[in-house]
Amino acid sequence: MVNLHTPTKPIFLTPELAIGACDVLLMAGPCSVESYVQTRAIAEAVYHHGGKILRGGAFKPRTSPHSFQGLGLEGLQILRDVADEFGLLVITEALGVEHVPLVAEYADIIQIGSRNMQHYPLLWAVGETEMPVLLKRGFMSTIAEWLAAAEHIASRGNEHIILCERGIRTFETATRNTLDTNAIALVKQTTHFPVVADPSHATGRVDLVLAAARAAVAAGADGLLVELHPNPAEALSDSDQSLPLEMLPQLVGQTKMIATALGRNLS
Amino acid sequence: MVNLHTPTKPIFLTPELAIGACDVLLMAGPCSVESYVQTRAIAEAVYHHGGKILRGGAFKPRTSPHSFQGLGLEGLQILRDVADEFGLLVITEALGVEHVPLVAEYADIIQIGSRNMQHYPLLWAVGETEMPVLLKRGFMSTIAEWLAAAEHIASRGNEHIILCERGIRTFETATRNTLDTNAIALVKQTTHFPVVADPSHATGRVDLVLAAARAAVAAGADGLLVELHPNPAEALSDSDQSLPLEMLPQLVGQTKMIATALGRNLS
Amino acid sequence: MVNLHTPTKPIFLTPELAIGACDVLLMAGPCSVESYVQTRAIAEAVYHHGGKILRGGAFKPRTSPHSFQGLGLEGLQILRDVADEFGLLVITEALGVEHVPLVAEYADIIQIGSRNMQHYPLLWAVGETEMPVLLKRGFMSTIAEWLAAAEHIASRGNEHIILCERGIRTFETATRNTLDTNAIALVKQTTHFPVVADPSHATGRVDLVLAAARAAVAAGADGLLVELHPNPAEALSDSDQSLPLEMLPQLVGQTKMIATALGRNLS
Amino acid sequence: MVNLHTPTKPIFLTPELAIGACDVLLMAGPCSVESYVQTRAIAEAVYHHGGKILRGGAFKPRTSPHSFQGLGLEGLQILRDVADEFGLLVITEALGVEHVPLVAEYADIIQIGSRNMQHYPLLWAVGETEMPVLLKRGFMSTIAEWLAAAEHIASRGNEHIILCERGIRTFETATRNTLDTNAIALVKQTTHFPVVADPSHATGRVDLVLAAARAAVAAGADGLLVELHPNPAEALSDSDQSLPLEMLPQLVGQTKMIATALGRNLS
Repeated sequence: MVNLHTPTKPIFLTPELAIGACDVLLMAGPCSVESYVQTRAIAEAVYHHGGKILRGGAFKPRTSPHSFQGLGLEGLQILRDVADEFGLLVITEALGVEHVPLVAEYADIIQIGSRNMQHYPLLWAVGETEMPVLLKRGFMSTIAEWLAAAEHIASRGNEHIILCERGIRTFETATRNTLDTNAIALVKQTTHFPVVADPSHATGRVDLVLAAARAAVAAGADGLLVELHPNPAEALSDSDQSLPLEMLPQLVGQTKMIATALGRNLS
Repeated sequence: MVNLHTPTKPIFLTPELAIGACDVLLMAGPCSVESYVQTRAIAEAVYHHGGKILRGGAFKPRTSPHSFQGLGLEGLQILRDVADEFGLLVITEALGVEHVPLVAEYADIIQIGSRNMQHYPLLWAVGETEMPVLLKRGFMSTIAEWLAAAEHIASRGNEHIILCERGIRTFETATRNTLDTNAIALVKQTTHFPVVADPSHATGRVDLVLAAARAAVAAGADGLLVELHPNPAEALSDSDQSLPLEMLPQLVGQTKMIATALGRNLS
Repeated sequence: MVNLHTPTKPIFLTPELAIGACDVLLMAGPCSVESYVQTRAIAEAVYHHGGKILRGGAFKPRTSPHSFQGLGLEGLQILRDVADEFGLLVITEALGVEHVPLVAEYADIIQIGSRNMQHYPLLWAVGETEMPVLLKRGFMSTIAEWLAAAEHIASRGNEHIILCERGIRTFETATRNTLDTNAIALVKQTTHFPVVADPSHATGRVDLVLAAARAAVAAGADGLLVELHPNPAEALSDSDQSLPLEMLPQLVGQTKMIATALGRNLS
Repeated sequence: MVNLHTPTKPIFLTPELAIGACDVLLMAGPCSVESYVQTRAIAEAVYHHGGKILRGGAFKPRTSPHSFQGLGLEGLQILRDVADEFGLLVITEALGVEHVPLVAEYADIIQIGSRNMQHYPLLWAVGETEMPVLLKRGFMSTIAEWLAAAEHIASRGNEHIILCERGIRTFETATRNTLDTNAIALVKQTTHFPVVADPSHATGRVDLVLAAARAAVAAGADGLLVELHPNPAEALSDSDQSLPLEMLPQLVGQTKMIATALGRNLS
């Protein structure tokens, strides 16, 4: 048996749902929450394909100050409403210390973005909550720095940390980032944290997302964080890498095959 | 169905054995051919686990001029002898133009190493043979440069080219290289060449080789090039990344599970 | 004449002292403010060698939560006191949004650290002050992302932005970072912001700091941000890259020769 | 005094001209020798500005097999003829082992290109001559690997090795490569080899070549290898980075100012 997940200490998101245990968890949703209608359509699709967790961005850290910066509080409310309608959990990003209380109120898992991996005041703030925290690897950070950032969170008392490999910056320009499957395998072996992968940012290209999702699960990932959109061409952010809803069955089907080959389930 | 291999044009290595078709091919053997006894032990293990191709280095390009540089012609003879005993094919590297005729005489597949990916006289020389050529990606070459190197070979008339992703150099130092599964998926989609992966160089660590092998096959690789040694601690080269023979069953078992999940076989 | 600084719009730090004009400005001081005695000794040396600006860290973003995290408010007070004694200006880092008012009260220039280059709430907060802001390039940020971060600051009304090249992360491990002199020259030509270099972080090695300082000034830098320590071996942070005070004359002498060759002064 | 060149052991190119001594040497000329007329015009300009060494490519290693691959033997003859007319030395690249005797016959310095830095048979072949060899750093090679390549040459008896930093590949895409001035300073300090810089490849942009040349000399380079063209827009290779002849006075003037500031000359 492959037995990838033995040393991992599962984190119970609900009394019935744990990450880092046998199931590989799908966390899917829009890059940005754009409207109730868009978000509900996605949540419905996630629910119908057996997903349990809705992802979505309300506060959007964007490289340019002139890009859409997210719906803010309204986005959080939409996420919570549609998630509750379908019995899903919510994961969303806290962009700064000042957002932590608000995000903690609306979400089930707080996400720390790649560009904030070493923003220590934010790490300390989520470390003072008891909520599960998904810590994205900085796209420029070594594995050692990533684990040190997790230690910053844990140093304030919160050990409910989920690591997320989302691709690193390399010299290659044909893809947005390079998925580091070695890192997935290495942190699985050397830490007790669950680890998930983000094949959307790790590729930046819809045509590579499925392959990256398969590779990540094969390397041992405990979950996937995937961007979906009803109409990617019109998405307000990340339109090149958001899977259209009609590809969700393929994503679920292919990753389930890999998970099953390793003696795991997908949900 | 995943159907990764449709656009690939298989290369027949023998009338019965093709790469780029349904089967994922295992190419395993020592980094350096050190002796008849060592090489025969490995070939026997490869054969017993269903492998069809023996890899091994006779001319070793080493960073330091003071390191072991390979057995040369004697190494080629050993490879051929033990391969013939077990009915295996031989893949080995041609280090320079002047080695091509000799390697072509003893081997079934000529390997171009990562450091030679842009040594054009060598590419032209193998391009003038009709032999299958395995072209390793330069460890800091873009996908576009890799395909341009393949074009240099093809421009001389030889289109029997197998691409090999072997990890790229990034800022991460916990691993020797970063396996680029995105690149595997991308060249599968955009070219008709079979593509294999080298999980040994892509990780540089025995404890990560199996995960990398699984990830590569999940991303669509048509084969694996793996370093094996009866006693890695005493290997004259690459001792940190050579799988001990007793891990061969796990390698075969785990990659077969992934291949099967994708509707393929392993041989 | 080389005329590097023509398109740059100088920022007046005092009515008599501008950055981005003819003078190359030296900003020197300890990585961390450790004590009054240490900081005063450094300030005195800076003053005696003609320096006008004292740098020093009060809030220290450290990779490990177990490292010394700075003296905080006490550090700011020490910086201000010793700077006032010698008529120097103070530059120090604001680590989070919550520090901005305090840092603005004690310092003359607010520094944004490399790891915070894309922490947008912090950029917006300093953008709402009228103080000069030194924006370090992220150690793995492209020039385009760096300028976009500057735009985040400017979008809130503050255009007193000083860009700081501090070395980027590459595959090379013999040095802590790689000084990107191309970037210095490029932002000088394409923006109106003054640009300085940090040869301490760009090398990570005392034995290379002088060469990096010379190269940066030769490439067109308007200033240098340098770490000094009375006794580097006992420094609480960055001991490998802090120049001992006795090397300050060489630093000043060599960079002044380069500045003079380009028709500039050093102060 | 800066005294950068003390530990360097000069290599006498003629009884009167040494590299690695007080003078910073300019090696300038076309990327590719395209014609007698083009090459003579460049050589004349180099001569008139005090240059002593003509560079030019006869065998061109090009990424695509469909690009211009150089004039070959005819190119060598043109180089030698025009160099002799103006009393210049010739530096040109040997692309493969088979070119070494020919290049040794026509040139004064043999260049090993960046893509061949680890092509060991070529290193051994030039190591068996007694000619000065300019060894370009691989654009993907660490300093340690570069010095190990030099050791491969020296292991065959030839210690007339000139190291050439020509920019490394990083994540930055605004420039073709990143000039590594740290590497220049480090190899000056730790080896006895002269070191030169190639600001043309290190930037890939005419508008940055002068700044890179200044920075390299400031960091301690003993020479510069620069691409020139009478009409860069029509160059058959490297047209974006070749300085037009009318910028040669600025190149000479600015690097001379930096060299003089460090107590050196330019020739």
